[in-house]
Formats: sequence, C-alpha cells, structure tokens
Amino acid sequence: MRNTFGNIFTLTSFGESHGKAVGGVIDGMPAGVAIDTAFIQHELDRRRPGQSNITTGRNEGDRVELLSGVFEGKSTGCPIGFVVHNTNQHSDDYDNLRNAFRPSHADYTYYNKYGIRDHRGGGRSSARITISRCVGGALAKLALKEIGVEINAYTSQVGHIRLDKDYTAYDLTKTEDNAVRCPDETKAREMERLIAEVKAQGDTIGGTITCVIKGCPVGLGEPEFGKLNAMLGSAMLGINAAKAIEFGMGFDVAEARGSEINDLFVSDNGHIRTATNNSGGIQGGMSNGEDIFFRIAFKPVATLLQEQETVDTDGNNITVKARGRHDPCVLPRAVPIVEAMAAMTVLDLYLADKTTII
Amino acid sequence: MRNTFGNIFTLTSFGESHGKAVGGVIDGMPAGVAIDTAFIQHELDRRRPGQSNITTGRNEGDRVELLSGVFEGKSTGCPIGFVVHNTNQHSDDYDNLRNAFRPSHADYTYYNKYGIRDHRGGGRSSARITISRCVGGALAKLALKEIGVEINAYTSQVGHIRLDKDYTAYDLTKTEDNAVRCPDETKAREMERLIAEVKAQGDTIGGTITCVIKGCPVGLGEPEFGKLNAMLGSAMLGINAAKAIEFGMGFDVAEARGSEINDLFVSDNGHIRTATNNSGGIQGGMSNGEDIFFRIAFKPVATLLQEQETVDTDGNNITVKARGRHDPCVLPRAVPIVEAMAAMTVLDLYLADKTTII
Amino acid sequence: MRNTFGNIFTLTSFGESHGKAVGGVIDGMPAGVAIDTAFIQHELDRRRPGQSNITTGRNEGDRVELLSGVFEGKSTGCPIGFVVHNTNQHSDDYDNLRNAFRPSHADYTYYNKYGIRDHRGGGRSSARITISRCVGGALAKLALKEIGVEINAYTSQVGHIRLDKDYTAYDLTKTEDNAVRCPDETKAREMERLIAEVKAQGDTIGGTITCVIKGCPVGLGEPEFGKLNAMLGSAMLGINAAKAIEFGMGFDVAEARGSEINDLFVSDNGHIRTATNNSGGIQGGMSNGEDIFFRIAFKPVATLLQEQETVDTDGNNITVKARGRHDPCVLPRAVPIVEAMAAMTVLDLYLADKTTII
Amino acid sequence: MRNTFGNIFTLTSFGESHGKAVGGVIDGMPAGVAIDTAFIQHELDRRRPGQSNITTGRNEGDRVELLSGVFEGKSTGCPIGFVVHNTNQHSDDYDNLRNAFRPSHADYTYYNKYGIRDHRGGGRSSARITISRCVGGALAKLALKEIGVEINAYTSQVGHIRLDKDYTAYDLTKTEDNAVRCPDETKAREMERLIAEVKAQGDTIGGTITCVIKGCPVGLGEPEFGKLNAMLGSAMLGINAAKAIEFGMGFDVAEARGSEINDLFVSDNGHIRTATNNSGGIQGGMSNGEDIFFRIAFKPVATLLQEQETVDTDGNNITVKARGRHDPCVLPRAVPIVEAMAAMTVLDLYLADKTTII
Repeated sequence: MRNTFGNIFTLTSFGESHGKAVGGVIDGMPAGVAIDTAFIQHELDRRRPGQSNITTGRNEGDRVELLSGVFEGKSTGCPIGFVVHNTNQHSDDYDNLRNAFRPSHADYTYYNKYGIRDHRGGGRSSARITISRCVGGALAKLALKEIGVEINAYTSQVGHIRLDKDYTAYDLTKTEDNAVRCPDETKAREMERLIAEVKAQGDTIGGTITCVIKGCPVGLGEPEFGKLNAMLGSAMLGINAAKAIEFGMGFDVAEARGSEINDLFVSDNGHIRTATNNSGGIQGGMSNGEDIFFRIAFKPVATLLQEQETVDTDGNNITVKARGRHDPCVLPRAVPIVEAMAAMTVLDLYLADKTTII
Repeated sequence: MRNTFGNIFTLTSFGESHGKAVGGVIDGMPAGVAIDTAFIQHELDRRRPGQSNITTGRNEGDRVELLSGVFEGKSTGCPIGFVVHNTNQHSDDYDNLRNAFRPSHADYTYYNKYGIRDHRGGGRSSARITISRCVGGALAKLALKEIGVEINAYTSQVGHIRLDKDYTAYDLTKTEDNAVRCPDETKAREMERLIAEVKAQGDTIGGTITCVIKGCPVGLGEPEFGKLNAMLGSAMLGINAAKAIEFGMGFDVAEARGSEINDLFVSDNGHIRTATNNSGGIQGGMSNGEDIFFRIAFKPVATLLQEQETVDTDGNNITVKARGRHDPCVLPRAVPIVEAMAAMTVLDLYLADKTTII
Repeated sequence: MRNTFGNIFTLTSFGESHGKAVGGVIDGMPAGVAIDTAFIQHELDRRRPGQSNITTGRNEGDRVELLSGVFEGKSTGCPIGFVVHNTNQHSDDYDNLRNAFRPSHADYTYYNKYGIRDHRGGGRSSARITISRCVGGALAKLALKEIGVEINAYTSQVGHIRLDKDYTAYDLTKTEDNAVRCPDETKAREMERLIAEVKAQGDTIGGTITCVIKGCPVGLGEPEFGKLNAMLGSAMLGINAAKAIEFGMGFDVAEARGSEINDLFVSDNGHIRTATNNSGGIQGGMSNGEDIFFRIAFKPVATLLQEQETVDTDGNNITVKARGRHDPCVLPRAVPIVEAMAAMTVLDLYLADKTTII
Repeated sequence: MRNTFGNIFTLTSFGESHGKAVGGVIDGMPAGVAIDTAFIQHELDRRRPGQSNITTGRNEGDRVELLSGVFEGKSTGCPIGFVVHNTNQHSDDYDNLRNAFRPSHADYTYYNKYGIRDHRGGGRSSARITISRCVGGALAKLALKEIGVEINAYTSQVGHIRLDKDYTAYDLTKTEDNAVRCPDETKAREMERLIAEVKAQGDTIGGTITCVIKGCPVGLGEPEFGKLNAMLGSAMLGINAAKAIEFGMGFDVAEARGSEINDLFVSDNGHIRTATNNSGGIQGGMSNGEDIFFRIAFKPVATLLQEQETVDTDGNNITVKARGRHDPCVLPRAVPIVEAMAAMTVLDLYLADKTTII
C-alpha cells in the first residue's frame, strides 16, 4: 500500500477508523519554521465531525500530539511524528457489515486486494483517515506562509444549488461563517436546508469544492511528468469520493476557440501578467504567477441509512442498512482536506525546485 | 525536471522538438514478452502529424529504433532504450519567437524556471515529445495483452459537437475509421468540417476524449495515496493541453443522491458484479472489475496563425503571429497518447501489486 | 531529511533521544502475516541499553505499541504505525553541550545543515533512534519466516580480539548466550573484559559484526543500480558508527587471482550450487542461493567520559567532557540493528521482484 | 530492473554489450552549465579498453552523442539523452556460453531471475555498460566544477603490491601518467609487470582503488537513511566486481579506542576544521568540510582464459574456457567509473539539499 504523499515534503500516514490511533510522519519540513500548535489543532478541528447538525454525530474531541521534530518552538528539519488517539468508537455498529460489501464503498475492492479487511468503520477507507492529511497540510501552510502562499477552498455546489464559477465574485474570508463553508450566505442557507432534507430521508448528496491558491511563485511544477496540474489533480482525486477535477475554465475549454480563451500577456511597467486567467494560473504545467484555481466534484457518501441490495463475502445476494453515524454530505468537511492536499503539493514542488546552481 | 513516469514500469523520456532526436528508456518491462516492433511503429504512426488535412502539415516519417532490452524477439527484463531521430525541422519558422512569450504557451514559465529556453518548435514543451509516450504505451500494451487488459480511447467532443456520454452506445472498433478518431461516423464528419473551418480562420478548437479500459483485474490501485483514479488522473492531466478529467458520472455526481447512483452489487451464481457502473469501475481507489472509463477535456491549441498581443523577454508589449505548421485541433492525435498513458499506468500498478506472500 | 528506508516495504522513522517518543510507520507489509507482538518486543529488548554492566546504564523499559495495520492478529496490508514513549531522560546531563560540538559526533554537521539542533542526548543522531529500525526489522523477519529466510548477526571482533573470518566455524545459536553477542564463549569473555577495562578508563572501543543470511531465493537484487550488495551496503553503512563493509572474502580479493577464488558451479543431480562461497552468496549483484555473508566495522563511540578539545558554536576553542550514560562499545547492541536492516532490505527486494507476468 | 541512479540528478541507463547501442538519459542537470563535449568524450576515453597492453584488446572507438538538453552550448534543465553505438563486436566469441553459466559471473543469477538471457558478451552485466556511468559522471563533474568540488581516484593496490593508505603522501595529478592509474611511478611499474604476468597465464587479479573528494560543502548527506557514506557506499558497491568499501580509517577502527581516533575540532580564527581526519570527512552521515576519502576492493575478473568447471542450463557438469578479449585486471579502467559514481552521488545530494526556506 502506498501511504506516503509527496517527494521532498512527505506525509506518511497510518491508522484505521476503529484502531488505536491515526497519525503519521511528516518529513522534509524545512528547519527554522515557527510551529504554531494552536493553528495545527485548529486546522484539525475544521475537519472534525459533529460541528453542526448537518454532519455526522460522531463527536471526536481529537487532539493532535506532535512527538518529534520541534525544538523550542521551531522545526528542526527532523521528521515530525504525530498521533491522534481514537476514542468514541462504536465498533458494534458495524457487526452486520463484517461479511457484507456495501455498495459503492471500498469493502469489495479491499477484500479482493488484501484477502483480509478491518470492517469496523470502514477501516482504512474511513474519512477519519483524513486527520493525518489535515496535520500535514497545517504544517505545509506554516511553511508556505513564510513564502507568501495562501490557499482557500470553499463549497461551491451542493446538489442543484451552485455558486457562480468565477471565484472572484466571492469574499473568501466569509467561508468559515457557516456550517457548509460557502462564502455566499444565501446559497449557504439553501445548501444547509437541502442537506437537512436529504439527511432526514437517510440519503446523501454530492457537490463541488473550489480551491484558490494565491501568491505562488512563477515556475512551480515540473514540465514533463510532474506538471503542477497533474500533481494537484493526483492530490485531489486521491481524496475519498472525488470523481472529477477541472482547472481554470475546465470542461468549458472543449467548446472554445484559441482566439477566445488564450491568456494574453501584458506588461505593466515591466511587471508581466496575463489579461485573463482562463488557464487557472498554470501554463505548460507550471505556475505563471496568476491565481491558481480548480474545482472538484464529490459524489454523495456511499453509506446510506436505507436498505440497499448487495452481496456478501460468500457471494450471496443480501441487503444492508448502515447503522451508526454518517455524513449526509461530505462537502463541508472536505474543504479543509482540499486545502491541506493543495498546501502539501505546493510546498513539495517548491522544495524540489533547485533548477540552477550558479 | 521530472522526466520519468511510473514507479515499477517506468518511461524516462528525453528530447526537444528541434534537437537531434527524441527517445527514452523503458525500465521494468517484464521479461519474456513477445516484442512486436511493427505494432510499436503502428502506435507511433497513430500520433504522427500529417495524417490528414485536419492535422499539422509537418511530415515526420518517424521511425522508432529499439536499442536494447530485446533478445531474439522477446523482452529480457533489461531496460529498453529507443530513439527517433528528428528530421523535417523548419527551425527558422521560430526565429521571431526567440524573445517572445507566446500567449497560453509554456514559453514564459519555462524561461522563468530555467533562465534559458530552446525556443525552436516549443523545445521540450512541443507535442513532438509525446513520441516517447507512444513507444512506452505500445510496450505496455504488449505486456497488458498477456493479462487480458484492453484500452480504447476516442474523440467524444470537438467544440459544440459532442457524443453521448455513454460509451456503450458506440462501437469502439470504428474509432480508427476516420481522421478525428470518433466512433460515430456522422458526428465524425461534423467534427471534421468544424476543424477545417477553424483551421481556415487560423484559429484552433478544443474538445474531449473518452477512454475505456476493459479486463482490468479487481484490486488495482493503492487505496490511500496511489488511488487508481489519482494515478490515471495524474497521467492524463500531464498530457499537454489537458484541463479537466472526470471518472464515471464525473461532475454529474455533484447533483446526485446516494440512493440514485450507488452501484449495487449483484451475484450471478457467485460471480460478483455491479448492476450499474456510475463509479466508472473504481471504488475506494481500486478497480472493481467493471469497465473503467473517464473523459478528459483538452483546450484549443495555444499557437494561432493570427496576430496576438503578448510581451517579450525584456518586458515590452509586442505582438506575435506563429509561422510554420500547427494543429488546429489536438484531439485526433491525442487519442493514442491517452491510450499510451493509460496503458503505462495500469501496467505499473499491476506490477506493483504483490500484496500477499503466502 | 530522508527518513524512509526501502522502496516497497518501507520504514518511515521519527523521534529524537529526548523528545516525547520515537516511532514510525511500516508500509508495504504483506497482508495475512501473523503478527507476534511478543517477538517484536523481544527484538526491541535486544537493543535495549542496561542489559549488562558493559552497556550504558540508561534503563529504558521501552514498550512498543502497534497502533494500526493489524486486525485479529494478522497484518492487513495497511500501514503499521508504532510508537515507543521516551522515559528515563536526563536532559540536564547535556546542558554543557548546547553550544559545543563534540568531536567525531554529528553536532557540527547537523548544526551546519539545519541551522538549529536539539542538543539533548544527541537529538536525532542518538542511538536511541534505532528503536524504529528494530521494530521494522522484527516485522520484516515475521514476513521472511513465511518464505524461509533466516538472518543471524554476531560480534566478530572487539578491539584486537577477533574471531576467525569463517562463520561456518561457529554455532550461531549461541550468540545470545553472552552479553557481547559472540558465539565463541572464550572470545566472548575476553571481549567482555576488554570492554570493562576500556569503560573504566572513560574510553570506548570499536569492533566488527558479521551477518549471515540463509535461505534467500536465487535472483534477489537488481543487477544494475539496485545490486543486493549495494542495497545491503547502503543499509549497513547507514547504521551509526559503521565505517566499512566487506562481502564474502572482502578486502582479501585484492590480493587474489581469479583462478583461486572463482566459485565453481557444481550440479548434484540437477541441484546447482557452488563448490566454494568466496562471493558471499552474491554474483552479478543478485543472490545465487548460497549463504549471504558480510562483515561491518564500527568505530569506537565518539562520546567519551574524558576531557576533549573542541570548539563551540561561536568558533571558540574549548574542552568538553560528556556526562551521563554512554556505551563504551556499540557492538553488542548493534547486532540486532544489523539483523533488522538486513531483514528489511531482503524483504523489500523480495517484494519488488515481479520480473515475469506470464 | 532498476536502471536509474540518483534521486534529483539521475542517470537512467540502457544497453547490452552486443546490442545496438548503450546510452541513457541524465535528468536533473542544473540549467545554465557550460557543456564541454570534448571533456565528456575524454572521460569516456579513460574507461575505454585497448588503452595499453594490460587491458582488453577490444578496440572500441566509442563516440558519445548528446541528443538533447543542450542549447547553444549550455544545459537547459531538460533531460540529456545520449547514445554510444556498439561496434567491433565479436558475438561469435560467445557461442559456447549460450547455455553455460560462467563461474562467479552473473550468468546464473540473471537466468534464474528473468528466465531469459542475452549471453553475448555478458549482456547487460558487461563492463561495457559503464559507458553510461562515465557520461553521467562527466556531466556531474561539469556541474560540480561550478561549486568547487573536485574528485580524484587512483589504483592503490594490485595483488600484493599496495600503496600507503595515506593518500596525502601522493601527488594525484600524476595518476594519469601511467596505464594502471597509480600516482606512485615505481609501484605503477610493479603493478604493470604483475598484470602482464597474470595475463600471460590466462588468469586475472584483484586490487583496490582509493577515491578523494575535495571541496565538498559542509552538511552534504541525509543524516538518517541517506547518509553520505551510505549513498557513496551504495554507488561504489554497485560497480561490477566491487566487494568491499571502507571510509577514512575503515576496518582499522575496529581495533581503535575513541581517545585515539576522535577527530578533534580546532578553530583557526573562527574557521573550524578537524586536527585529524580519521573519519574520512564524514560525521553523522554528513560531510564535515574535510577531504572525503574511501577505498574499494575489486575482485579479479571472473572470466578466465583457462578451462574451468561449471554447469549448463540443463544442470550438467561441464567445463568452459572463455574466448575473446578480456581484462586481466579491472582496476585501471575502474578508476574513472569510481570518479563518475562519486560525482553523480555528490551532485545528487547537493541538489537535494534545500533545508531552509527563510
């Protein structure tokens, strides 16, 4: 199993939903960065369930403990081990799933690949595993702050309720003002109502998240097999339930002509920028100094509080109905994960970027 | 620069558009596979320009030469070096671009990252570089044939002309019957007309390609940081001009409810399959035995045979107009590249898959 | 910093001597292997200080806790996180070293590389860091047991007291019978006396360890840049204080002729073996089915309980004298580390070895 | 098969002794370095056989051709593909070895690992494969020259004729003055006589090479799993026929006490150095600014022009006697390979070294 993300700045992650703990090791953290542990805990709290009545009721007072790599408040360049202990587990809720493959979940594929599976709470395929990503992302953000890079994601669609595609139309400082993490207050309220309605039916619903990266230096990304969009794409598509991603204009480019959407360069007293940003800040696989932005689609959570047809490990046709606490909509809690993955990707590419020596 | 693709089965690529040659090294090819050099050349020919009047006029009679790793017609497990010599270059066509940054092209980002740039024909950012990918893909296909995996891509949209999203509606054996590589003959003719029209205006146009992978064993992909969709996504977004990708239902999942789109498992006399395939053959980041399919959006080629505003390396506002031979639409020639990248990704993950030892 | 060992079976390690804990993540453990936690703890106990009066007095009742990757007594293929909490620290013992560079230690190089250094107990350069290696090695041994590979190391020299180079002269089951881990009881007693004498002088002493790997399948190792001897060499030279390694006849080959030392193949009823084993079981960078053996030299521990001349961080000439608990001889406690590194190397190469697919 | 060396600066190599060509791809070359092609060819010529009557008679007028990555005389940061065509092959010389396993050679292990083997000239296990290493090393040297690092290796022992271990006793500029590459003219003549004598008997002989790296900045190497000695050790033990390596005092540390061999720091007006250099310039796995030096033992070439007992692929006991052109002693031609591997290792670690960002 591949549980390390990144090449220079790396997160190696471990843990299952109902094991003793989740955690990981962050390697390649630059030395001398001030480590704000309150900020790291705050980032972790953002993904926590039980923040409102539209997310899962599992109340995990998760506390992250950094075990190494920090000395007198600063990173030392040594690996940062961390652990978050699992508590508030209701493993019995999953007894009926021991031999069942839940539809559209990872049960069947895990079982086939490994011949063994920890069925409790989804094992390693649980959303709980994202805790490690949040911690890695928080540390990456602390390093990126030193070089002026800022990353903001927000919920841009839930079901049929959607924001305008143009992120510049919104004040991203308002994202955290509501439970769905949507910077448009009116749409946010509509989304909340929709999620509550879906939840009442024991159903789930999908949506999209938009992410914006500001302040990225020009030239980030490797132009052949490590393109910035390929690396960000891989990072985002690796988030549970992500099914699609588009950069800049995205799928709309398929209908466009070059003369309409090419981003013309303009020089303002020698400072070069583009007149438009249809490329989403990436050209030739490298950042061009403009805002980088992209949009990710998440499918509805597969686990339903409804009866569903499926099969068991012996190949019998059965039905399952989940018990326990489950999110009706993954979007609000996925916003910090998207930011975390973006932060780790950008820092990793930044640290790899030593193209000249003279 | 990162010029190696893959982890176990790897392609390391080299070459620029107007250098002496392009080529690469394929490592990790399983031993004992019959090496059909005619097939490899055929795959290479599929990406060649000058196949019809809707692609670039550059006529590159590219011949691939395998330099190692094959003995008496079979792969030996040793690395396969290969080279394709560059001919038919018109480097003078690019003299006016030496100090200009073409809009939406890689010129500006390359120059900023490396401080130096081979401006002739786009240097390493040229579409010509995909030759190496085609050769790598052809070898991967030869190995995959041994395990029954088949990969087919086709042009599913050019501008506003689009096919139905459901690939099962088409006979994919007809893809190669026309110059745009579209299995629907009527739509293919419409696409050809549109491309010819766009070309006449010195303009370019975008589109989408759909790819279908059949016969993939269950359990391919690494469930945390090497998910099958993340790896395929990274491979596809690394193709020049790719701006978006969606798996299975893709962005449509954002509007859907779990009860509508979950793929229910059914057992046919012990053979487990899913009743629907909204997931696109991937669950929990691993293949589930159903067809894998995804759709990629390509932007219109950035190089126009029209005057465009831009800046030069000294920061002056100037205009450029490309000379030379350029594709009005990248889609037809990108089809074999999509297949090649898919083939290399699947083989790489297959070879990494040694999860049990007992 | 590079804190991951291996490519397929990997150990990612964290921790400093006087931090909260040391630990790591083991990834790539094959699924379905019985996890004998008592054995893992036993392997950890073998490296523990305070086992006798010839090792450091630091009494670390280290208990390893596996946090994930094991379900109902078996490995699941998921990453195995583990942690060993630090206790019994005497950080004050190191106050005088905060600004001093101890001779032949890592203080100076760390400080120059990172600009910051956890001086307490040597920080990350402490021998305590090998705890993670022992845990990784123990898990690798459990997997290797399934395929019949056995690894035994022993102290073959301390100062001028040395064993015969031919390991077949000794009964390796007796290695653990004495505190120096030497299978020759008479030599063991001499070594113990020498170490005690050196310790009484506040001095330290070097030595060698020999390692023997039995049962390795033919063909392990990658013949160009991942030769078995290169991989084992890298693993062993990465152990603190290791300064040299030789395989088979080692440095004695420099004086030999091919006709004297070539290992002739013989066939016993179709079973192929070599008449001699001067190669140490490795030919062309791959295992040939014979016993693999090698010998590693360890320098005396750099930390002395004597006054030594050195400089401080301001470039002043000063003297230092270590306080606290230090090993007079690293050899006995390095024996399990050598085995652990060998086990991880062999398993890693074994899991990578999928050369054919038909 | 693993045919890529390095992590940031990488050489991916291909080719067999009697295939069409050998070559490779160098990736990660910093941009803007002046590419002196005459120097690269000169480095290649140093490893060439047929330089004198003490090396193999195969006269390979090998010419290296760089195919990419260089523009107007400077590196562009793009990958550098290169090829050296094979000529002067006498494949028929090897017909009798098609089904025979030569003693102490890679024939048996290759055949077991891959089930197929190019027997002509040793296939990929041939010394000819080192051509790619020489080219990679030459490019690394060009980059290292920019930062003041200089690397010199020399033959320090052939059979029983050996130089003093202290490299400072010799004038290394004289190494290239004789055919054995030994800076002591008297010893060089003795070595030449010994090699000629051994050759006359159809036999072969071993020896050692010493390598010295000057000008390395402090802090190179990764202190846990990428120690400078581990990386250099891996590089050197990966050279054909290398059986042992020692750094600084090497195996002599086993007899020493800490008080005798610790390298005390001294400050000369704030410039910190060590009074002695028993560590060989490496402490805690990182360079400490002193000269780095190490010594490698090479076994005698396995291929003899004498009758030897062995077995064939069917398990029959047979005898073989090599025909063709073979080196009686690998040492003189291995000197440039040692330098090349050292150069690539040092540059790779230098480029990875971005430990701080503020």
